[in-house]
Amino acid sequence: MIEKPLAAIVSAGLSKFGKLDGFSAREIFTYAAKEAFDKCPNLDPRKDVKGLYLGHMTESAEHQGHTGPLVADWIGLNPVPAVRFENACASSGVALRCGIQAIKSGFVDVIMVGGVEKLTHLATSDATEYLALSADNFFEQWHGFTFPGLFALIARAHMHEYDTTGEQLATIAVKNHHNGSLNPKAQMQKEITLEQAMTSRVVASPLRLFDCSLISDGASCVILTKPELAKRFSDTPIYIQGSGQASDTIGLYERDDLTSLNAVALAARDAYEMSGMKPKDIDVAEVHDCFTIAELIISEDVGFCKKGDGGKLVQSGDTAIDGNIPINTSGGLKSKGHPVGATGVAQAYEIFLQLTGQAGARQVNDAEIGLTLNLGGHGSTAVAHVYSTTI
Amino acid sequence: MIEKPLAAIVSAGLSKFGKLDGFSAREIFTYAAKEAFDKCPNLDPRKDVKGLYLGHMTESAEHQGHTGPLVADWIGLNPVPAVRFENACASSGVALRCGIQAIKSGFVDVIMVGGVEKLTHLATSDATEYLALSADNFFEQWHGFTFPGLFALIARAHMHEYDTTGEQLATIAVKNHHNGSLNPKAQMQKEITLEQAMTSRVVASPLRLFDCSLISDGASCVILTKPELAKRFSDTPIYIQGSGQASDTIGLYERDDLTSLNAVALAARDAYEMSGMKPKDIDVAEVHDCFTIAELIISEDVGFCKKGDGGKLVQSGDTAIDGNIPINTSGGLKSKGHPVGATGVAQAYEIFLQLTGQAGARQVNDAEIGLTLNLGGHGSTAVAHVYSTTI
Repeated sequence: MIEKPLAAIVSAGLSKFGKLDGFSAREIFTYAAKEAFDKCPNLDPRKDVKGLYLGHMTESAEHQGHTGPLVADWIGLNPVPAVRFENACASSGVALRCGIQAIKSGFVDVIMVGGVEKLTHLATSDATEYLALSADNFFEQWHGFTFPGLFALIARAHMHEYDTTGEQLATIAVKNHHNGSLNPKAQMQKEITLEQAMTSRVVASPLRLFDCSLISDGASCVILTKPELAKRFSDTPIYIQGSGQASDTIGLYERDDLTSLNAVALAARDAYEMSGMKPKDIDVAEVHDCFTIAELIISEDVGFCKKGDGGKLVQSGDTAIDGNIPINTSGGLKSKGHPVGATGVAQAYEIFLQLTGQAGARQVNDAEIGLTLNLGGHGSTAVAHVYSTTI
Repeated sequence: MIEKPLAAIVSAGLSKFGKLDGFSAREIFTYAAKEAFDKCPNLDPRKDVKGLYLGHMTESAEHQGHTGPLVADWIGLNPVPAVRFENACASSGVALRCGIQAIKSGFVDVIMVGGVEKLTHLATSDATEYLALSADNFFEQWHGFTFPGLFALIARAHMHEYDTTGEQLATIAVKNHHNGSLNPKAQMQKEITLEQAMTSRVVASPLRLFDCSLISDGASCVILTKPELAKRFSDTPIYIQGSGQASDTIGLYERDDLTSLNAVALAARDAYEMSGMKPKDIDVAEVHDCFTIAELIISEDVGFCKKGDGGKLVQSGDTAIDGNIPINTSGGLKSKGHPVGATGVAQAYEIFLQLTGQAGARQVNDAEIGLTLNLGGHGSTAVAHVYSTTI
């Protein structure tokens, strides 16, 4: 039995997401770090912050690995322990979980956890290839699979099994673009219509252009500390009450069922169990919509509706900002953008804003409990966290 | 104040190091895992092991990232949480430290920590390039620097400052080749002479061929558990008493002094402090000899001799297997081999053998306290651990 809360978030930062021409990953991260430091005047970064745990997915994009100490140096934290985590698009979700372990173990009192990626300078074919490194090379990449194709198989299976429709997928895109239009840091701050989404060009059938998230640059971070130190740094900290992580096969071909993401269900189960919360307790959630089908399946697998009803859930309006269980108020990966290594902690950033009443035009009323679900690959990694406003 | 010991190692495994033709990283890791499981009959891997923390340096070599869950699946651990760590050649040293945090935080009772790399199928120029990704792309890689060149600068500075000689560097190579000749898993199981070393071709002046470690395939792992559970799994566990990690600039050009590795000094200081040990208490050490100059400088920076005396230390015979402070009894990276992601935990494997009396022909008499020092890049990361036979 682990004593709760696990840790507190006392500040957070996010760079603009999008095509950040002329900036490298190390530079982009400074924007996220500066926001987190500026928002936390009681924190002396050089004195208080004793580590950097950084999600960063691909060394290929900038011909640069070993980004833990590199980024730590560029934000003035050298010589603190700095670690790079790579679990595909769950890289910073995993960094967050390990950051909690660093706090909870007594190794550090305060640590920065973040993520970064720089992709938009690449040709789209190169970016797609580097992202595909997270799929199985010998058995899937090699045969030409990239993630749109792999998620298309998942979508087709779900349509077959549960009569899920393209319109339901498109409704997720419309919702997330609406939310993104309210987020000044989102890459795509524009609404789309259902018709636009449903008639956009096919990328990998049944997935169309607007079913796919974006290739983005961006960075995210949070400042984690021990719960008992939280009030030293912030009047409105939020608390992490549960953490779950699970894995699944890296080959889609190895799975018994494509309509559910087993690692998601297990990670969510563990995060709920640790926190003592249930799906109905969640006021706001950020879940991994790398493709619309991912949000749909995750909304089922984390228990927001019964299996197969993810399409009906979004059509009911329940996942809108003013619905019963608002999902991806930030705009999600779909509209806010998806700088892959930054995405997991960017989800935590949105929950931090929502739970501290700083989400502006997209604020959810009375949000007190939040959930994040960060996916790596097609669910080979899943990481869930539950957050609360009170200790 | 963190309660000690931090964790116990109850089993360990190592693949053969070398050119493992026809085997991929995921397959090579199974050899390390199988040894660790076979040596620990009271452990039920599927039931007891609740995570895999894996050091793996380069996605480029096999066009494969996301190796945490991939490797976990291939050794039968799916769906446990699995994480890939990348801190250059300190990837698995960092994984070990985070594995200790996972144990100490109460998140898991038993976790496997390991590392793997597959490099020898590559052209040497490609392998050298992928390894160089850990150096600063914009300010050093770009100008043609790879690690032999960067360490050559360090060696030249040390020679200038302390009158260190090529013969002293060569003496390290001769010692480590002798030790490797006694290690059936070493890549190079052959002795060399001082003359051979000193007349081998120049790679990057003043470093010659025999000053450089090898391009290798290999895997390593340990089974970590809470100290109070150790005796359930092993009659002869060893205990981790201290852990230190620090960073330095990723650009060599940014440093004030090239003759010392600041991150090494800091990591060792913290590991000693946490363990309550001092340099003179160490009976056997594995330190990062990616180049002979690295072993020489590290032996100074961890306090085995005074600054500048690293050359005299090896010439005195003190670092030989029967010396006062045996260093790299395994053969080190120089002779055992250097599958980069596996190296940090391979050092812990050797200490496990030494402290449990299983090191065969290279056994150090009465070894009770051990030290590992794992380097990432040219010291942009350093990780130190102190081990003991008693709780």
